[in-house]
Amino acid sequence: MKPVILLLVPMKPMEDGLVAAVSALRPDAELLRWRSDLPEADLARVNVVLGWAFPPGLAGRLPALRWVCAMAAGVEKLLVPDLAPQVPLSRIVDPDQALGIAQYVAAVVLDHARGLARYRAQAPQRDWTRHPMAAARHRVGVLGYGEVGREVGRVLEALGFRVRGWRRDGTALHDFLAGSDIVVNTLPLTPATAGLLDAAAFAAMPRGGYLVNIARGGHVVEADLIAALRSGQLAGAALDVQQREPLPADDPLWAELGVTVTPHIAAQSSLATVAAQFCAGLQALADGRPLPNPVDRARGY
Amino acid sequence: MKPVILLLVPMKPMEDGLVAAVSALRPDAELLRWRSDLPEADLARVNVVLGWAFPPGLAGRLPALRWVCAMAAGVEKLLVPDLAPQVPLSRIVDPDQALGIAQYVAAVVLDHARGLARYRAQAPQRDWTRHPMAAARHRVGVLGYGEVGREVGRVLEALGFRVRGWRRDGTALHDFLAGSDIVVNTLPLTPATAGLLDAAAFAAMPRGGYLVNIARGGHVVEADLIAALRSGQLAGAALDVQQREPLPADDPLWAELGVTVTPHIAAQSSLATVAAQFCAGLQALADGRPLPNPVDRARGY
Repeated sequence: MKPVILLLVPMKPMEDGLVAAVSALRPDAELLRWRSDLPEADLARVNVVLGWAFPPGLAGRLPALRWVCAMAAGVEKLLVPDLAPQVPLSRIVDPDQALGIAQYVAAVVLDHARGLARYRAQAPQRDWTRHPMAAARHRVGVLGYGEVGREVGRVLEALGFRVRGWRRDGTALHDFLAGSDIVVNTLPLTPATAGLLDAAAFAAMPRGGYLVNIARGGHVVEADLIAALRSGQLAGAALDVQQREPLPADDPLWAELGVTVTPHIAAQSSLATVAAQFCAGLQALADGRPLPNPVDRARGY
Repeated sequence: MKPVILLLVPMKPMEDGLVAAVSALRPDAELLRWRSDLPEADLARVNVVLGWAFPPGLAGRLPALRWVCAMAAGVEKLLVPDLAPQVPLSRIVDPDQALGIAQYVAAVVLDHARGLARYRAQAPQRDWTRHPMAAARHRVGVLGYGEVGREVGRVLEALGFRVRGWRRDGTALHDFLAGSDIVVNTLPLTPATAGLLDAAAFAAMPRGGYLVNIARGGHVVEADLIAALRSGQLAGAALDVQQREPLPADDPLWAELGVTVTPHIAAQSSLATVAAQFCAGLQALADGRPLPNPVDRARGY
């Protein structure tokens, strides 16, 4: 099979990098960059998709499609209703991406746990007042214990935190949250997890708790989060993902006390890793072998 | 021997806490809090000192002194010229304090390596611009590889950094610095290490390097550091310690771009640990056994 690959990559520099990296490994492949005016004749020849998200209606216009490869750990934007049920979906698993996310989580957890924002606020006043504290030993609950959740747990344990991981098939969520001073969300976004972090979840956490979300904005009911922050039930939150991305300038999260907003930057996949794993998948597809890192379409991850 | 203990503890809440913790373990001990008007008759009975620093001239006024126990890892302010040469000096070694310092170092290293200050600057503008980067793999050079340096190294390795430790008896300092994108200073302050981080040291580092100092302000020639920051040779520095503490409001470090100043808060010793180790030392002294964690007065650590 000659691969005819449609790239669904929103950022031009990354698209350019991927074209170069995949072409170097598979000079025989034809690479098409998604544009809304791509001729139907080209779409009809596409047998592989690599990217983040299907534009609305596109999946149904790819009759020759044999494989969808997700570049991100979260695949919910590729699991569209018009994707034919027999098309397998798999994803890139980049150990470096999991480490990158764990570094981001460690940074925001330490910043909260050691009260460092206080010193950033004092510095412009040239105020050297000390508020020393012992090593932080907070109880951290990690929601989702896949590649990313386990890496987050490993790093936070090395930093002295008391870490537990939660899976949907284990302890009841609210019991788990009750023992977590800091909650780190690494869940996949599926119908079963959307909106899981709501008023009842925040109420279940110990007062003064802290939320870190590096998964998807859709996990958090943002109005409930803001209410929990304003009541003092939560002390703060670090949100690398939001319901609306890019987060609009009029969103109340920007100005909420104790909230750190970052623009979905916890991790960047290495293009070399993406290209190598994608091309290994192409070969598996050609050989009729199982695809690496398959996604269970019914579960959504 | 009935212990007559002079406390040299500058902060009242910590002094109160220590008096309570030591008295609970050794009800027979007499605890004197240092004040400049303590009668000579009381000073003449002091046989043990516990604290951070001798006020000028005090050490020579303690004829019965048999032991000095340092509460901090750095002992330079107890190694005064008028301390009689036969008086042993030892120090508290608190594993929790080493972890606390490692947490602080991890926080500032991640903040630098992952460029998080950029997002704190964007947030008030409600600017969601992404500058994603892969997991940070900087080369970190840790100066001093005692309890604290090794703990810092352990934590940074777990976070994915490439860590090497430097001791004064090993590689030449400037060769070591040349291979360190980030330098973390954990050295003791002695005549051999004072001013070690000077213009020549900063010039030996790779351009765009970063300095973390959690040891003593006296290790850094601050005017040279400011010059290295302004020339772009260093990208920034996190200074938990400064030449002058409290750092006066007119100090240029407060306003220097890329510099994070914190008021000597990287770690707080646990009073329970200090009291327990100190009382174990008292017993060793009474029994004629070696004191735990002795300091080599000639080396200064």
